[in-house]
Amino acid sequence: MVVGATRLHDRRGRVASGTALLEGPLVVAEAVAAGADVDTVFATADDPVAAGLAESAGARLVVVGEAAFGRITTTTTPQSPAAVVRIPPPSIPRESHLLVAWGLSDPGNAGTLIRVAAAFGFAFVAGPRTVDLWGPKVLRSAAGAHFHTSIGSCDAIDDLRAAGRRVVGAVPRGGEMPGPFASDTAVLIGSESHGLPDDVVAACDALVTIPMASGSESLNAAIAGAIIAFAAGRGHM
Amino acid sequence: MVVGATRLHDRRGRVASGTALLEGPLVVAEAVAAGADVDTVFATADDPVAAGLAESAGARLVVVGEAAFGRITTTTTPQSPAAVVRIPPPSIPRESHLLVAWGLSDPGNAGTLIRVAAAFGFAFVAGPRTVDLWGPKVLRSAAGAHFHTSIGSCDAIDDLRAAGRRVVGAVPRGGEMPGPFASDTAVLIGSESHGLPDDVVAACDALVTIPMASGSESLNAAIAGAIIAFAAGRGHM
Repeated sequence: MVVGATRLHDRRGRVASGTALLEGPLVVAEAVAAGADVDTVFATADDPVAAGLAESAGARLVVVGEAAFGRITTTTTPQSPAAVVRIPPPSIPRESHLLVAWGLSDPGNAGTLIRVAAAFGFAFVAGPRTVDLWGPKVLRSAAGAHFHTSIGSCDAIDDLRAAGRRVVGAVPRGGEMPGPFASDTAVLIGSESHGLPDDVVAACDALVTIPMASGSESLNAAIAGAIIAFAAGRGHM
Repeated sequence: MVVGATRLHDRRGRVASGTALLEGPLVVAEAVAAGADVDTVFATADDPVAAGLAESAGARLVVVGEAAFGRITTTTTPQSPAAVVRIPPPSIPRESHLLVAWGLSDPGNAGTLIRVAAAFGFAFVAGPRTVDLWGPKVLRSAAGAHFHTSIGSCDAIDDLRAAGRRVVGAVPRGGEMPGPFASDTAVLIGSESHGLPDDVVAACDALVTIPMASGSESLNAAIAGAIIAFAAGRGHM
């Protein structure tokens, strides 16, 4: 069982099993509260809340020693409990705007962007060459937001159009000022170092640019996404 | 000289000397381009640009071996050059809005918030119990923004009022929607875990709240600051 959980540290193990590993009381509690499909809760003997979480989730509780718990988890100072959760099928919901991470390789940025999406009522989509959203670092920086929004994936802009979205690319210059969207929209956020590829920019229906003081190069992906999502909701929320 | 530079890893050494250590080509180049008062540039022998940077800055160039360079710097894979720069006197400029970090202890968040301030034409102020802004991690996450805005400090809200600012606190609920400011403003951003202390909130002239979807607790300090600074500039930039 412990061997099974450590396999979830790697993408291959997650894909093969269709499950991911949640670490620490905050993320596990958020998942349970949101009704996630929790399979197993791992806890150390001194953890008073793990049994309650396992019971709420209808999950199996496995109490392990500290050394075993250290192997299950990926941080240097792991906190009980951890949990194995079934990854929900990636879907592009029809009823909200989307934040789409396009080529975002940094797990911390991706996790923060998922948290931003959840905060502003956007669903989240992993575009091509984006880090696996169910890895330990992404789950940690998203702080439970995976369970407060929908998580989808797409391979091409046409997938977003097929889901009924106008496609708006975030670019460092030349786009419109962020503001409310005229219709259901997918906002593409590129990587901090490279931005969106030229062919992707050319295929967008519209472009948006956050105005900045001279001398500033770009904002990180999570901050850009947050400003665009906030501006989209002004007057609506 | 190498011994002197390593002392800048700690706040005490920075305060005693009035200098800070910049690491890596990006931050050093930004400081030189912005006309910072650079004292020494440390470089490894294979660094082709360090001599030019030192000459532009009117700074002394010191070529050191890789082992010595590794001791000077704080990252596991250090990149040449590094530089010792004089910390500018902390001042609260009179001509711009301010982002004020209030009790912000995380260096990464503080650095990103400085970058946000620079991007939106705000000056930056370290309030009470805020991490030293000239430490290596803050400098790294700010990516050179220390040299594109003014960096001040304050001990109390009255310091901000004395500098002619209306004081606006960012709070998770109950404040006004972010938007343009009526007059020169200081925006107080608290720590992610604790927010602003109650007595500080009570002493503010106005409060601002970023509307979020239900179930979302709070945004990190850099994201909250970015949204408020962006909203303040709408229609002005």
